[in-house]
Amino acid sequence: MAVRAGIVVTGTEVLTGRVADRNGPWLAEALRARGVDVGSVVVVGDRPEDLHAALAFLTGNGLDLVITTGGLGPTADDLTAAVVGEFQDRPSEVDPALEERIAGVVARLSARRGWLMDPEATAAGVRKQALVPVGATVLEPVGTAPGLVVPAAEGRSGPPVVVLPGPPSELQGMWPAALAADPVQAALDGATELRQQTLRLWGTPESELAATLRRVEDQLTGLEVTTCLRDGELEIVTRYASDAEPAYARLTEAISSDFPDTLFSTGPTPDALVAGALVDRGWRVAVGESCTGGLLTARLTAAPGSSAWVVGGVAAYANSAKEQLLGVPAATLAEAGAVSPEVALALAEGARNRFGADLGIGVTGIAGPGGGTADKPVGTVHLAVVGPAGTLTKAVVLPGSREAVRQRTTTLAVHLLRQLLLGGPPA
Amino acid sequence: MAVRAGIVVTGTEVLTGRVADRNGPWLAEALRARGVDVGSVVVVGDRPEDLHAALAFLTGNGLDLVITTGGLGPTADDLTAAVVGEFQDRPSEVDPALEERIAGVVARLSARRGWLMDPEATAAGVRKQALVPVGATVLEPVGTAPGLVVPAAEGRSGPPVVVLPGPPSELQGMWPAALAADPVQAALDGATELRQQTLRLWGTPESELAATLRRVEDQLTGLEVTTCLRDGELEIVTRYASDAEPAYARLTEAISSDFPDTLFSTGPTPDALVAGALVDRGWRVAVGESCTGGLLTARLTAAPGSSAWVVGGVAAYANSAKEQLLGVPAATLAEAGAVSPEVALALAEGARNRFGADLGIGVTGIAGPGGGTADKPVGTVHLAVVGPAGTLTKAVVLPGSREAVRQRTTTLAVHLLRQLLLGGPPA
Repeated sequence: MAVRAGIVVTGTEVLTGRVADRNGPWLAEALRARGVDVGSVVVVGDRPEDLHAALAFLTGNGLDLVITTGGLGPTADDLTAAVVGEFQDRPSEVDPALEERIAGVVARLSARRGWLMDPEATAAGVRKQALVPVGATVLEPVGTAPGLVVPAAEGRSGPPVVVLPGPPSELQGMWPAALAADPVQAALDGATELRQQTLRLWGTPESELAATLRRVEDQLTGLEVTTCLRDGELEIVTRYASDAEPAYARLTEAISSDFPDTLFSTGPTPDALVAGALVDRGWRVAVGESCTGGLLTARLTAAPGSSAWVVGGVAAYANSAKEQLLGVPAATLAEAGAVSPEVALALAEGARNRFGADLGIGVTGIAGPGGGTADKPVGTVHLAVVGPAGTLTKAVVLPGSREAVRQRTTTLAVHLLRQLLLGGPPA
Repeated sequence: MAVRAGIVVTGTEVLTGRVADRNGPWLAEALRARGVDVGSVVVVGDRPEDLHAALAFLTGNGLDLVITTGGLGPTADDLTAAVVGEFQDRPSEVDPALEERIAGVVARLSARRGWLMDPEATAAGVRKQALVPVGATVLEPVGTAPGLVVPAAEGRSGPPVVVLPGPPSELQGMWPAALAADPVQAALDGATELRQQTLRLWGTPESELAATLRRVEDQLTGLEVTTCLRDGELEIVTRYASDAEPAYARLTEAISSDFPDTLFSTGPTPDALVAGALVDRGWRVAVGESCTGGLLTARLTAAPGSSAWVVGGVAAYANSAKEQLLGVPAATLAEAGAVSPEVALALAEGARNRFGADLGIGVTGIAGPGGGTADKPVGTVHLAVVGPAGTLTKAVVLPGSREAVRQRTTTLAVHLLRQLLLGGPPA
């Protein structure tokens, strides 16, 4: 039988979106990789009754394991440990040795940051963080907050609840210790590790893929297939136990034969494909971007070690910057306009020349919401890549908000690089 | 009595974090502004039983309104409309007029994108999207998917379920129509609109703020206060009905008097403060960044109209780029090293000069995970701002991943600009 887990993410700042939750997805992935099925993630604010209801929902669903994130700080609205203790019917007591260890961490931290702490407020916060439900396993703090593994009270049924801190680095640092705790080991007993594979199409609509999946449906037993269209890229993620390997091979075959012209990857992201192709040839790329304002260079430099294949980029927002930093001729700007195929090409060539790079990529467009005209509406974007292997250009009118246009343009630019370097479906 | 709503976000791609959910937070905020209390957001994958369990959880909690997002596409794993129809005990039927309208939208879209669609697969997808639970209100498509307002079947109790599409632009475009639907109007009857105000501190630990909040606790009746520490900035968000205005004034007074040196905003983000100060003086800024690789320029250009205060930026990843594009002296790079106060200053000055800007900001550091040394560990960052109002520099060693260091450095840079332009707590 499948091992199943549920996740509760706490924090009003997450519920209202002032902070994007990264813990729910991270834990869902970490659990899936261990063969544990995650059916739902519940996000609640800082109210104890909402957290209590979420715990009741998940444990009532017959899950084997429940994990909470957040709400372990020193302030009054950090309630998770106390609510979970009550829920599992285990009263909390201060663990004096833990209190001392947390006090030490806080003292070192505030000394390093030069903070002047009020001793009484600090001690109250530390004492709160050292409250442990009786019978719970303490997970040593990575930051200042300890985690907990809280089994249901003796004689009561229900899954153990793993209580983890909210800062992603603390949560991830504590995860191995959480997995190693006895109640968690017992809950995970019998879980089969799953493989995950990804196929990527560029330019195929979801409905076409759906038709293929329907056609071969009865050959895909044991596969869990999810499709997702994002910024024009159709991602097909499949999870399966090792005995379903032949079924996965049949899926790959069906997709390769139905979509030979749009299947561009049997795994790596376009970013990784581009980076790999540049490294293989010893080439480096430089960026001249306008409407994306730095996002394209930021994306190309997101990967560790990217200085091996990226020289840099200019975000040339003003026309004067396009002229002075990238040598776009004033006459071209005046005649064709800043948003034009000619300027995209001049930005690409300027970036290549000024940075001494092998390839240059140029992007110009109108991200909006203002600046559109009848001829060049908001969303008009021109792109160009120049390199030893030739030149490619692309013109498009993208729908959506300023943010969506900037984002989608960045993805298009990566695919234009991919097309120039590796062929495959046109960006 | 408070009007309460719950939100279900569907999609395996959201559950597993391949796509970050923006709809749950957006809806929670939109509902809060209407005075509707949102206690929890449940994220589920594409399995009908998980969606059903989430609906049962939320409606069982005595809520007045439930909203779902996602799962309205043409493919087989898009199940939301059917599951909600079953849950509300309203069988679905094809709405022929709606089917025709959707077919028209799909035909226009695929013509514009140059897609060759298989007519049979397309028609099947359109027919699926035109399935409407009997007695539901149709919300006209913004993309291809219609939304729905599905009340509980006649004679059954329970809140109406509003079914909205997953793409944020479609969901947001459809929101006014959803609010206007009769069952939603009836559910919202009696909700009091709330105000929301934000105070921002830079450099105050959460525990100090907690002590202040405890001290004045009994004067804050009617306020809902949430605190959130992010990248060094402590955000205090307060929501209240208009009759609690005096209580909010007392909160502001207490925080101003306890933290006069770290309170830097009674509302606007640091980005808005910086933009406002630059526009007021008619100044423009240029960026010379290394470890942030374009993120700082991208952040400064995220706001509409930012060309009024940003000229552009150079992401000078390679040393050669620092020399050639920003005129950083080779000798400085050789003697002080690329990550040094001297190079941060030279990047700032170079950006100011080369772009002809009024202010220049320079950032250099080691984002990691590689590249650290004993002298200059991963996380070492130097920043400098030069402008008509003087020069400021900052040196820091930041903890965390490559992504965290890049992000935190970007925020620090915005605060260094804020400090130079407006004073207030040092970055």
